[in-house]
Amino acid sequence: MNAIEAIFTRRSIRKYKQIKVDNEILELVLKSAMYAPSARNEQPWHFIVIDDPDLKNRVMNAHPHAKMLSEAPVAILVCGDKELEISPDYWPVDCAAATQNILLSAHASGLGAVWLGVHPRTERKKAIREIFGLPSHVEPFSLVAIGVPDEQKDQPERFKPERIKRNSWNS
Amino acid sequence: MNAIEAIFTRRSIRKYKQIKVDNEILELVLKSAMYAPSARNEQPWHFIVIDDPDLKNRVMNAHPHAKMLSEAPVAILVCGDKELEISPDYWPVDCAAATQNILLSAHASGLGAVWLGVHPRTERKKAIREIFGLPSHVEPFSLVAIGVPDEQKDQPERFKPERIKRNSWNS
Repeated sequence: MNAIEAIFTRRSIRKYKQIKVDNEILELVLKSAMYAPSARNEQPWHFIVIDDPDLKNRVMNAHPHAKMLSEAPVAILVCGDKELEISPDYWPVDCAAATQNILLSAHASGLGAVWLGVHPRTERKKAIREIFGLPSHVEPFSLVAIGVPDEQKDQPERFKPERIKRNSWNS
Repeated sequence: MNAIEAIFTRRSIRKYKQIKVDNEILELVLKSAMYAPSARNEQPWHFIVIDDPDLKNRVMNAHPHAKMLSEAPVAILVCGDKELEISPDYWPVDCAAATQNILLSAHASGLGAVWLGVHPRTERKKAIREIFGLPSHVEPFSLVAIGVPDEQKDQPERFKPERIKRNSWNS
């Protein structure tokens, strides 16, 4: 799939067929995450692949918008590692770029995915940290549910020319 | 360009030919930013296109890593708008996804770009806010310098299988 087309046609997919996600495609999606830019190219991230039903249930109980995990064959927890940073506090920025690469790569591979926000919600972070046994220097950032899509969504109109200014806020 | 290829071959490009960036391509790049996912689909962003040489100079003085702006024909300042949020404090996450779409779309369009971090550095934010006259509810997030590439970079190896865990940190 063409890159621009992938960007424009990607949607949040929350319904999935009961089919396993191919391991090679999942690895390609994770590799895509690792090709995101990061501050000083620190790549301060880890990825936990979640396919255990009990764990998915525990995440659903800890996150208010994670119902689709009951159907999703797999999810990825994107984490930032503060000990891998030279530029402090950029890990959420870096992890967001990695998460966006996951969504685009999944979509371009024929999968559907949805980004569930974890950071900066302290309650969600605390619960997720406990479920996965994260050490104190590792911060949960986002969850991405992934599967073969069982819903289709059209491309909406999101271009808003009024959000573009030139050389000044008051242009 | 294929989406996965765009993700893997995108690099930070800091040298540009002295050629204007086509307006239609620039609009496509900005449209790509607006197709990023955002918390509750709030799309809480604005984009300031910077092509004024004096302004570029002022930004170079305000940002420690912005030297390439002297060569870049154009830059985009990505801003978050706290008044457009329903989910407080997600604007940096949303703006990061939008910035990543800008980088990928520029690369897929034959341009080169580099992401300059602004948020969360308070000094840079203060200086950028003054230069562009941003109101208090609008936060500068990132700068992207863009131009026709005048350097070529190979695809590095960034895949780190040890950063992938399964169902637990201690897997």
